[in-house]
Amino acid sequence: MTQNKRFVLASRPNGMPTRENFELKTEEAARPEDGEIAVETLYLSVDPYMRGRMNDSKSYAKPYEIGGTFGGGSVGRVTESRHSSYKEGDIVQGGWGWQTHAVVNGDLAVKVDESLAPIQTALGVLGMPGLTAYFGLLDIGQPKEGETVVVSGAGGAVGMIVGQIAKIKGARVVGISGSEEKNRYLSEELGFDAVVNYKTESLDEALAAACPDGVDVYFDNVGGEVSDAVFQLLNANARVPLCGQISLYNVTEPEPGPRFLPLLLTRTALVKGFLVGQYQDRYGEAIPEMAGWLKDGRLKYRENIVEGFEQSPEAFFGLFSGENLGKQLVKV
Amino acid sequence: MTQNKRFVLASRPNGMPTRENFELKTEEAARPEDGEIAVETLYLSVDPYMRGRMNDSKSYAKPYEIGGTFGGGSVGRVTESRHSSYKEGDIVQGGWGWQTHAVVNGDLAVKVDESLAPIQTALGVLGMPGLTAYFGLLDIGQPKEGETVVVSGAGGAVGMIVGQIAKIKGARVVGISGSEEKNRYLSEELGFDAVVNYKTESLDEALAAACPDGVDVYFDNVGGEVSDAVFQLLNANARVPLCGQISLYNVTEPEPGPRFLPLLLTRTALVKGFLVGQYQDRYGEAIPEMAGWLKDGRLKYRENIVEGFEQSPEAFFGLFSGENLGKQLVKV
Repeated sequence: MTQNKRFVLASRPNGMPTRENFELKTEEAARPEDGEIAVETLYLSVDPYMRGRMNDSKSYAKPYEIGGTFGGGSVGRVTESRHSSYKEGDIVQGGWGWQTHAVVNGDLAVKVDESLAPIQTALGVLGMPGLTAYFGLLDIGQPKEGETVVVSGAGGAVGMIVGQIAKIKGARVVGISGSEEKNRYLSEELGFDAVVNYKTESLDEALAAACPDGVDVYFDNVGGEVSDAVFQLLNANARVPLCGQISLYNVTEPEPGPRFLPLLLTRTALVKGFLVGQYQDRYGEAIPEMAGWLKDGRLKYRENIVEGFEQSPEAFFGLFSGENLGKQLVKV
Repeated sequence: MTQNKRFVLASRPNGMPTRENFELKTEEAARPEDGEIAVETLYLSVDPYMRGRMNDSKSYAKPYEIGGTFGGGSVGRVTESRHSSYKEGDIVQGGWGWQTHAVVNGDLAVKVDESLAPIQTALGVLGMPGLTAYFGLLDIGQPKEGETVVVSGAGGAVGMIVGQIAKIKGARVVGISGSEEKNRYLSEELGFDAVVNYKTESLDEALAAACPDGVDVYFDNVGGEVSDAVFQLLNANARVPLCGQISLYNVTEPEPGPRFLPLLLTRTALVKGFLVGQYQDRYGEAIPEMAGWLKDGRLKYRENIVEGFEQSPEAFFGLFSGENLGKQLVKV
């Protein structure tokens, strides 16, 4: 008998999530019925948005149910197929979350093209984070050659792709992160034009120095005081794709901040929250283009892989300490 | 000899503007040279955005210079023409500001079509405020039939046109103002579906009652606490055309407010500051359409006309007390 291990949401966190919010369950793995496939998970994805789903509040992300399986995207190998599109051994990606052996509706999974890149990139640069970077930057940010693009959370899975696509489009790119190691990587390996460390530098001064011509596009993953500082530098007709607010996800008593509306008015700027799923019908144009950039070396990616399914919650907690460089994954 | 009276900016205000910021000058009127026209002002426009131009700060509106003529749009009669497009007696509109007898580059003036509506509407419903309402609402707000549109500053020149155009487009319209008289007019004369008085009602409660299905479009003229309350009700994919922030124009020490970015993210909402001049190449489609609505009675306008050129500063101060209903004009 195959055993399925899965993490369920045991309770909702108040502030920073802890191990107590998770429960590991072991049970007999199900068998697929007609139209379904059984998969053995190889990699599972660990993403900041999952923190939002732990709350029971009005959001684009539906709250996790207490007792329901935690997590989002995973990549696995088909072990048994009762769907005509798949055969045993196929590599597929789907939203079955943090479990080792899942049964999935075959219509809701996607076959991973193993010729494009290593399979786990279907959860990173060629998956949700990559598509988020691509559409948020190109559709909302619309950077033009020579413009200044600032990205917060620049060392994360989305941020480092945003910066590289902005470079491909000819923009000057400024990355903000909270670690010297990340910033060194962004400058030296990814060619960011300037980097700012929000933990060690005076944000206002460092940003002003890094953005002598102001800010035309601000791709925001972080929010809070980092965004307060960047907003002051927005140029006329600036665009702000709002992708995340990780600095505020674990805050229980939000502090007020400067009011932005007068500034957005006088700079005739645009701010737009978005959800990658809104671009689903255009994934087919984005993935081949990004795969091409990967192949010709213009787009690089980094992964932070934790080994062992049981470590998944710890991999998740690591997102909020600002230490992970690149896409956070668990190898099962 | 014709005398020209004009108001110049004597000093920049700190907070609410006062008479001391203005100086009335009387001097011999100039005569037009080739390509110019001399005009006698009939109506001059008094608008909230002028407060912003009194400051010396980075904004879409170029600061007024100390000693320079104050004001913006005016309507007048041509008294002498040295431009082939105009003859004596023509009614024209242009940006010569608060002066009784101006000399204007004919290329920068626009002939007023007296057959459309009373000539002073070129400063109101068929001029800058009307075009601001039209493009902000339709281009950024994009209200759909049955959606809820909230407009702040609803009793002002822009706000009351916004609400009426939203009604023409089939939306449910909620107006916010600070006066019972304004709100009665909006409900009874203009057909707004609900009104909220931010001075006498609890904003959160009154808005929730007025917007049982949330807010799809928020056309903001006011900012501050009014906007804080409306933002809480934004629906998924809401649009917020930012037109003005009159509640904050005279504030010298801005208070912090709730941070909006997490909310804009989870509601995948859009906020955009705009300037009517960005739509200049489309005025030609808007004015005939609005003139048609005027003629068939679907669009009404109100004017608050102060008589006497010398009263122009007082007419301007009145904008900030929340008492003026409709478009503020001075009849010279």
